[in-house]
Amino acid sequence: MNKALRADHDLAFLLQFENVAWFEDGQVRILDRRVYPVETRFVTCRTHQEVAQAIADMVTQSAGPYYAAAHGMTLAAYECQNTADPLAYLERAAHTLSHARPTTAARMEAITGAALRHAKCALESGKDLVNALHQYAVHMMETRYRNIEKCAVSLANLLPSDATVMTQCFAETVIGLMLREAAAQGKNVQLICPETRPFLQGARLTASVAADQGCRVTVITDNMPGMILSQGKVDLFTSAADAICMDGSIINKVGTFQIALCAKHFDVPYYVTGSPDRQKTNAKAVQIEYRDGNAVLEHQGIRVTAPGVQGLYPAFDVTPPELVTGIITDRGIFRPSQLYDYYNETDTEDFPSA
Amino acid sequence: MNKALRADHDLAFLLQFENVAWFEDGQVRILDRRVYPVETRFVTCRTHQEVAQAIADMVTQSAGPYYAAAHGMTLAAYECQNTADPLAYLERAAHTLSHARPTTAARMEAITGAALRHAKCALESGKDLVNALHQYAVHMMETRYRNIEKCAVSLANLLPSDATVMTQCFAETVIGLMLREAAAQGKNVQLICPETRPFLQGARLTASVAADQGCRVTVITDNMPGMILSQGKVDLFTSAADAICMDGSIINKVGTFQIALCAKHFDVPYYVTGSPDRQKTNAKAVQIEYRDGNAVLEHQGIRVTAPGVQGLYPAFDVTPPELVTGIITDRGIFRPSQLYDYYNETDTEDFPSA
Repeated sequence: MNKALRADHDLAFLLQFENVAWFEDGQVRILDRRVYPVETRFVTCRTHQEVAQAIADMVTQSAGPYYAAAHGMTLAAYECQNTADPLAYLERAAHTLSHARPTTAARMEAITGAALRHAKCALESGKDLVNALHQYAVHMMETRYRNIEKCAVSLANLLPSDATVMTQCFAETVIGLMLREAAAQGKNVQLICPETRPFLQGARLTASVAADQGCRVTVITDNMPGMILSQGKVDLFTSAADAICMDGSIINKVGTFQIALCAKHFDVPYYVTGSPDRQKTNAKAVQIEYRDGNAVLEHQGIRVTAPGVQGLYPAFDVTPPELVTGIITDRGIFRPSQLYDYYNETDTEDFPSA
Repeated sequence: MNKALRADHDLAFLLQFENVAWFEDGQVRILDRRVYPVETRFVTCRTHQEVAQAIADMVTQSAGPYYAAAHGMTLAAYECQNTADPLAYLERAAHTLSHARPTTAARMEAITGAALRHAKCALESGKDLVNALHQYAVHMMETRYRNIEKCAVSLANLLPSDATVMTQCFAETVIGLMLREAAAQGKNVQLICPETRPFLQGARLTASVAADQGCRVTVITDNMPGMILSQGKVDLFTSAADAICMDGSIINKVGTFQIALCAKHFDVPYYVTGSPDRQKTNAKAVQIEYRDGNAVLEHQGIRVTAPGVQGLYPAFDVTPPELVTGIITDRGIFRPSQLYDYYNETDTEDFPSA
């Protein structure tokens, strides 16, 4: 484990929840979230192309691809140390890493673009390129962690003393930190996690890490949120987002829309954590990614339906702003119609803040 | 296979779709829908208590428990042939069979009650008890099949020439007959089947039997119906029902409500097939069955989440009448507010007509 990360108590906590990726000794190692918690296995990438492939193969999810891309740029710097034009090499690597998955390309470009700016500075001032990019990657992770912590505190503040929270997919760090903060506030929180087929991030990841933290966790299948919400016992529905558009539309794991619609129907508030994406005016700016439909036809690798049946796997859906109660950011809670207030004139977009 | 069933061409077709159960040679054999289509296996019950247990164990689903109960009564008649008070024995058997699963108890009682009336007639007129009850069971299956056929024709009539139909769970015979009727009308139908976790009736049963029939079938996971409906390509959503209340509330496999809510949101009509249950004024008259939550935590028998995580498994949900476009019965299509018109003064309730 990277020493800079290991030294920090909060970052050690982070590692329990995060999609970990780090550069060390000419390799990027990525925690394989496809097999967790059954197995704790790391995928070792020896080239930045292998990092891009791991991102495409869903080895890491949620914020993990951002970390992998930042550390992938460090690996690219390591690869091009003795080439004639390291910047051209890094630009190609930035493109490869950013486009490993279509839905997140813009945010990935923000990260790899920031890495390129750090690379230019280092080259101009004669500093060590690998070290400069590694420092950027670690700084990016730390800053993101601090921002997520702010979101988690805002989320915990919204909860009653005995709270039932429904999640979707794997909002990772923010859920872990929300549970920690709620406990510090003396609040008793139980989680309801839809399992999130076909990759089961809700059952495998969110439920498992929250249970490890001592939280009462109940897993339901993805056809049950509406029924559970109808019983009036859920105080709040929350999810992260793969993209928050400036008009308040939310792009997130498929299923989020139908839970949000049910939550609205039963007057349960829906809070999204993250930060708006200035490059996405509305949901039309987002290409919804379709993955291999065979994943839908299988359970634990076993096909469950007759030959000739097709599977369809849209990875994300769009939740319109009218179903969103608020967007919890590192800069406070915004209504979906107020997201332009999030940005200051001077903001750069080095990386997604949450 | 029972000769009376095998001789009928339509009933042979029925067997492809139905949850088959029949009495023969002192045993009731039930097609095990838990393993179909991977395996075609029958559970053999040597006592009516074993039939009740098979119903409780979900060996057969949808209409299957009704058939199993009717043939279970025949088996009970076989068991009590030499007892002093066969009617008392049959009354106890009727109670055992009817209450194998709580949600359907009233409809099961209608079937076992009818069987008891046939038993009384047979005893009074000195006819063979086993034969009388067997004739009732076969007659019940045949009548139900004819009624379902009427529903299927009404459903097919509603479809455009190129139709995309979303289903829920396993509406069995009605879907098969709808596909056959639509083909006869020269209509091209494709099905979209949510997989229906945790037992996967949509993927394993509906999708498989429709594909066997040559229909284009796409399986999606249970978090996707809202996203798919948002694309505007689905013409109609249809499901059967475990109970249709007289106020138009629909009790059906969990997930039906959230699909119906999404369908309403996107102006896709939702048609339910079946017949109203006079004993159920509204949804409060129905006890929602909770099954073993461990089924939610497993895929193909493999646990996917950390120890300490609980599973919750409500088997059904309630779709309120305002989300239902129409109820397709053997007596025509009714609006949910008009269901009292379904019944005539002279109606008895020997068995659910669809």
